[in-house]
Amino acid sequence: MNNIRRIMLTVSYDGTAYNGWAEQTSTPNTIEGELNRAIERLTGEPVHVIGASRTDAGVHAYGNVAVFDTASSIPGDRFVFALNHELPQDIRIVNSREVATSFHPRHCDTEKTYEYRIFNSQIMDPTKRFYTCHFSMPLDIGRMNAAAHYLVGEHDFTSFCNVESQALSHVRTIKDIRVTRNGDEVVISVTGNGFLYNMVRIIAGTLMQIGRGKGTPAEVKDILDKKYRGAAGPTAPAEGLFLVEYKFLDGIPGPDTDCKSN
Amino acid sequence: MNNIRRIMLTVSYDGTAYNGWAEQTSTPNTIEGELNRAIERLTGEPVHVIGASRTDAGVHAYGNVAVFDTASSIPGDRFVFALNHELPQDIRIVNSREVATSFHPRHCDTEKTYEYRIFNSQIMDPTKRFYTCHFSMPLDIGRMNAAAHYLVGEHDFTSFCNVESQALSHVRTIKDIRVTRNGDEVVISVTGNGFLYNMVRIIAGTLMQIGRGKGTPAEVKDILDKKYRGAAGPTAPAEGLFLVEYKFLDGIPGPDTDCKSN
Repeated sequence: MNNIRRIMLTVSYDGTAYNGWAEQTSTPNTIEGELNRAIERLTGEPVHVIGASRTDAGVHAYGNVAVFDTASSIPGDRFVFALNHELPQDIRIVNSREVATSFHPRHCDTEKTYEYRIFNSQIMDPTKRFYTCHFSMPLDIGRMNAAAHYLVGEHDFTSFCNVESQALSHVRTIKDIRVTRNGDEVVISVTGNGFLYNMVRIIAGTLMQIGRGKGTPAEVKDILDKKYRGAAGPTAPAEGLFLVEYKFLDGIPGPDTDCKSN
Repeated sequence: MNNIRRIMLTVSYDGTAYNGWAEQTSTPNTIEGELNRAIERLTGEPVHVIGASRTDAGVHAYGNVAVFDTASSIPGDRFVFALNHELPQDIRIVNSREVATSFHPRHCDTEKTYEYRIFNSQIMDPTKRFYTCHFSMPLDIGRMNAAAHYLVGEHDFTSFCNVESQALSHVRTIKDIRVTRNGDEVVISVTGNGFLYNMVRIIAGTLMQIGRGKGTPAEVKDILDKKYRGAAGPTAPAEGLFLVEYKFLDGIPGPDTDCKSN
């Protein structure tokens, strides 16, 4: 029998056609399901990938991470080509490598970066409709950055968390938030050690309200203090959200290294 | 009876789902057909818009132009809102205005700008697959610009024209071509007074061959001189092509001005 090896995939996808990452019996069309079936077709083994981040329906990713175990003899770095041949065009493997069999992407010290992309013009660019949120009222980037400033650091983000969250603690650390504009496109870039259910989309919805002049930047501090979902703005729609990077703080995992458990 | 007025629309669209601009009895799903039906629903009048540029299946536009006549009392600048309510999300009116009843967008002195957009990386960005052409071999932008230089000016573009073209003359003037790179995205921007059938896509296919090292920039001069379609490179796929601007050289048309006929 071959040795069992663990393979790590870095995965990009257009989430438009999918009911999110997580495969469940009641949920067809998932990223996880497509990966499982593509790996099974390739290796002949039944597979259940372990994902790093369970993105929601319609959310996109450039750098999500998944691992799976295989007894196949395919070299780690060849899965990228072989799996792209099996996968639909809206899911692409951008990197594949062998990692330690004890490696688990959610047990490492990591930093995630999300971008929330907004098309801020009265009339939508039809070629951007699946990849940005359309917001027609003018957004003041200066106000949005001033508001975002209050979210940086360690806070209880209960106000910025879907009430259905099952997280034991709502304390998270945001390392950086930046709001930038390039023509009609406004991007909110958020980096942190972990995010609650809908957290980035509620932050985006809140910053858009403040950016259009409803509420002041300093009110974000009050919203945090209230620890009440109703205090924050609406949940911005899924199509604007991109998981852009899932960074392992102890370096890129390899076959002989493991990361610290946290 | 109301006076007949002529309305000019500036139209953006995602061409992915359409068989191009032109409505024909054998062609369902056209931009022109969607516009005709939306205007008919709004005004109750049967309408056949006159388009400025008949883009091909899968080609996108930010600034195509169409005119139609109406006896309705809707102010010219209100059609933009009213029609966007009737149109599918992949077609947006970005401007509407009343023009002289003698105004015809193809009888004016105009300049068109196309962009051909390339995703130049080994693995495709899945969110760009309908809006760029994937080209995996490294492209040398310096070589592409040097090659493009030979196309600027007035030339017989027979070598860069689909053999099914019915144009009486293949002489056209390219005012400017520029090739730029922003990360993995390479954009060929071409401005001219008129373009032959598939001309921008054949230029793009030829510049990509030279950019990857097949042929020298100076060979573009020989390709022009041969006046033979087989001398140029392949026709690049439709999804990378955007009609970005249709510019009226005598200024923005209005109800009391007409442009020169050319």
